[in-house]
Order: sequence, then structure tokens, then C-alpha cells
Amino acid sequence: MELAVHFLGTAGAVPTPHRSSPAVLIQRGGERILFDCGEGTQRQLMRAGVGFNQIGLIFLTHLHADHYLGIPGMLKTWQLWGRLEPVKIYGPKGLRDLSEIIRKILGRFDFPVEWIELSLGSSIKGDGYSICPISTSHKIPSFGYSLVEVPRPGKFSLEKALELGVTPGPDFGRLQRGEAVMGTREVRPDEVMGEGRKGRKIVISGDTRPVPEVIEAARGAQLLIHEATFTSDALDRAKETGHSTAAEAAEVALQAEVDYLALIHLSFRHTARDLLNEARAIFPRTVLPSDLDRVVLPYPEKGEALFELRNG
Amino acid sequence: MELAVHFLGTAGAVPTPHRSSPAVLIQRGGERILFDCGEGTQRQLMRAGVGFNQIGLIFLTHLHADHYLGIPGMLKTWQLWGRLEPVKIYGPKGLRDLSEIIRKILGRFDFPVEWIELSLGSSIKGDGYSICPISTSHKIPSFGYSLVEVPRPGKFSLEKALELGVTPGPDFGRLQRGEAVMGTREVRPDEVMGEGRKGRKIVISGDTRPVPEVIEAARGAQLLIHEATFTSDALDRAKETGHSTAAEAAEVALQAEVDYLALIHLSFRHTARDLLNEARAIFPRTVLPSDLDRVVLPYPEKGEALFELRNG
Repeated sequence: MELAVHFLGTAGAVPTPHRSSPAVLIQRGGERILFDCGEGTQRQLMRAGVGFNQIGLIFLTHLHADHYLGIPGMLKTWQLWGRLEPVKIYGPKGLRDLSEIIRKILGRFDFPVEWIELSLGSSIKGDGYSICPISTSHKIPSFGYSLVEVPRPGKFSLEKALELGVTPGPDFGRLQRGEAVMGTREVRPDEVMGEGRKGRKIVISGDTRPVPEVIEAARGAQLLIHEATFTSDALDRAKETGHSTAAEAAEVALQAEVDYLALIHLSFRHTARDLLNEARAIFPRTVLPSDLDRVVLPYPEKGEALFELRNG
Repeated sequence: MELAVHFLGTAGAVPTPHRSSPAVLIQRGGERILFDCGEGTQRQLMRAGVGFNQIGLIFLTHLHADHYLGIPGMLKTWQLWGRLEPVKIYGPKGLRDLSEIIRKILGRFDFPVEWIELSLGSSIKGDGYSICPISTSHKIPSFGYSLVEVPRPGKFSLEKALELGVTPGPDFGRLQRGEAVMGTREVRPDEVMGEGRKGRKIVISGDTRPVPEVIEAARGAQLLIHEATFTSDALDRAKETGHSTAAEAAEVALQAEVDYLALIHLSFRHTARDLLNEARAIFPRTVLPSDLDRVVLPYPEKGEALFELRNG
């Protein structure tokens, strides 16, 4: 199943002519899952051409305005386009207050909009994956998120099944679905199925100081998307404002042993080159996406992540 | 004094990959005056490179979300950039409620933000111009706006002044400022000053059905910026939603005898070509700007408006 990440908005709190406010889209098969929704996200989605209307789940990392100001306009556009499919919006404490303000200014919608305040330990189960909030450390209640695919069943061994006298046909399907069948004797699924294969994992830090909870959640992930608002020169400012430096993001990636690190939430005060060099000195497999760049993540045994980056 | 209009966002209620939500900037000398402020306007301003921080006045035509959702993010960015200069935001009834919602979600700013609900008959006096609300007809309280320059004094006649015995020097200045001075006898300013010269006028319709008040306000304007959400095929829909067709906008321009008509607030349902052709059949001096197009308006005696359009 295809799994791709679209970097829709890579700016920090202040957008620039080239970087829109924060938003990351995960595309998994036919599903579209949005993480944060800064001002202008709807147009970034239209530009990316990835199925703006198919978004069914939105996760907000925290309720600073630069991370949610795109929501009212997006809901309004869906309404005007005649959307009927429900949308669920998840986020930390305070989300319900925000939902009331948005309802007050925009009125009701013809499609169901559900606002769900998450707590740590929750797990949102999708079809073949789950999304969990991660404890992070910002100025206000905040989460990171992990998307973890459920392990795929192992490979079915045709030879083994025939050897055990299973009749080719429906019984093969039963074994693959986990049911025992009769051959020369009762055959259990584990006798003919190889070891379960790991799914993929993507972790998004949201705005945060570097924290062990993100390292733990990101362990072995294909991709860690970590904020890197500042370079190390501005470490004091990072501490004061609850953000991370590029070096700190790289240190998290290194300790979590992820395959790749992507830096987002970049302050206009630093150049992309400086941020990237700082991180790569610690964790070489770091990328710094431009807006509308994407990465495709194949299953681990199928090869490397494929980055489509405008600027290296 | 330079007078230019920047079309920042030319979409209707739903933005597209190419057209941002409604916003028009008037640049007059060092001043920047914004009319409407749809989602994404701050980035459009940055892209236009016309002095985002110099905006001191914002006029909202009405309080539908597509016309104001860019305000919170813009205020936030100013705050983060350390703005200290005041900003005044004008609009119809309901503006104060909006200001309270925005204050609730964003808190206070370090620069003064004044929200002023206008009524018909008000006139905001600037340095050499005034801006007045115009009665329009939309679904909710709404205004158009006219920007009218004060007439410039006529030309000072050096020959006439010398002939009347005025001493060259400070007395010339006094005459030009409207004071009488002594020559061979008392000389009145009107004896040495030519006829006053007309200033320039720009009218913005906002979202509205075609109305006589806009025709009246726009009479003789250099530029009428009129909404043209639909083509005539959708006249019923225009009536129902309180909008104008391209033909109706052209009819307003024709009756007001303006120099040029610019169509904005375009529905994604119609092509630019169809809208433009429909209007030009009635009023040939019609343009349909793309986002970030601009027009420079010289004083009437100095020549024609200069359009910088991406698509003809």
C-alpha cells in the first residue's frame, strides 16, 4: 500500500513568500490524514493535487494560531463544494473551545464535524494503522503523533501447505486469515505462514523541545518529522519559546535510530543551508523539504525512501 | 504622487490553486491601504513585495469568512515581527464582535489595533484623500468603498503674479497656499492660480448585486473594481446569493462612465475568458486581473492607466 508524506507548509510561526504555515499530509492508500492546518493549507492542498476532499482525519499538535488558522476556511470550502463525508479533528485540550469559536463564526455544516480532545494513551485505529499522541514539551498543551502500521502477515508457503496435504483452494485462504484447516492432519496457520512483517512508522514531533518521549515513539521509524525552528546559536531562544534547534532534532533522530529525519517549522531568521548543515553533522540522513515536496516510503524490505525534493 | 492597485486575491468564496481569497491593496505614495483580507493575504502581500508592514488601514466590505480570515494571521505576524505602529480596521456592523473573537484567540498585541464600525455617510480623511463607504446589497451588512483624492490646486502663474507687482519670494508661497498678498494692490490667490485639478478616484464594489449607489459613487472614476462572481447563465444564482454577473458589472461601469473596469471575486465555476468576454461586449475597457497583477493610475492629465497583467 502506498505511503507518502507531503510537506504542505514548512514555515515556523511566520510564513514567508516561499514557506506556508505548518501542515503535513500523510497519504496512505486512498486515505488522506492531515497534521496541523496553518493559514493557507487549503490552497497548498489544492496545489499538491493530492485529493483535498478525501481528508477525513485532522490532527492538531497544539493550539497556537499558526497551526490551526487554516481550518475555518477549509471547512467553509468543503461546505460550498457540497461535502457530505464526515471529518474528525483531533487535538489537545482546548480543542473544544476552538470548535465553539469556529461554529460561532461559520455556523453549522452539512457534513458531520467531530472535534475530539485527546489524552495520552489514546490510540486512533484506522484500517491497517493506528495513530497515537506523544507527550511533548511546548508552551501550551501539545502532542506529537506517531502513525504505526499493524504488522503484515508473513508469507504463505505453498510448498509447506501441499506437503501437509492441504487441498489447494479455499483452505489456503483460511490459513492466511488465521484459521486452522484439515490436511493429512489438522494444520495450524503458523505452520505454513512465515514470520509477521513489520509495518511502517512515521513520527511527527509538533512544536517541542527535544524530549525522550519522541525518541521512544520514533525508535526505528522510517521517517521522523521533527521541528527545527532555530540553529544552535539561538539555543537560549529555543528553550525560552519551547522549540528545538536543528542539532537537537538531529540528536533525537540519532538516538531513535530512524531511517530519515525531515526538518520542518523553520524560522525565517535562519537559512535552510545552515539548519541542514547543523543537523547533518550529527545525523547525515537529514532532509529539509521545501513546500510541496514529498517522500514515498516503501515497506522496509522493498527498499529505501524516495524523496522528491526541490532543493536537494 | 504614485497611485497603484495590487490585486492580491481575485477568487470568490472558494480559492483555487491560482487565485487566493479576496484582497486588494491600494498603494498611494508611502501609504498602503488594504481592502478585504481573505485567508492567505499576508503571504500574497509578501509575494507582491509592496511593504506588508506599512499597512495602516484595512477596510472590510463585509464579514463573510472569505473576506476576513487573513486578519488573525496578519496581526500575529506583525506581533512576532515587533510592530509598534497602529492599525485601524474598518467595516460594517458586526466588526466589533469579530474583534472580540480575535482578541479571545490571539490575546493582546503590542501595537494598537482599532476596530471601527462604519455607517453610511462616514468619511475617513487621509493625507490628500478620503475613503467613504458605499451602500451595497449583499446577504449581510456590506459596503463598497470609494477612495477619492482631494482636488489639487491649479497651476501658479508666475507671469500673472509679476504683472500684478507681487515680489518674488515668500509671497509666491502665500498665494499658492491661498492667502492674499500685496502687489501694486491686494492680489487674491484666484487671480494667479489656475483652475483646481481633479484628483483620482477608485471604487471597490465589494460583494453585491449591481446597485445605483455604486454607479453614483463610481461616476468618472479612473478605476472601478467590481465583483463578477458569475456569468449571465447563472443570473438566478447571482440574485439568490447577492452577487453580480460579469454583464451586470459591465453595465455598472458603462453607466458610471469610468475609465476602466477590473473584475474580481471570480467563481471557479466560470473561465476567466467567459467572464471577460461577457463584460467586454458591454464595456470594452474591462480587465480581469490575475493574482499579484497591478495597475498604476497617473493623474488624468498625465495619461492612461498602466496595467501590468499576466494574462492580457
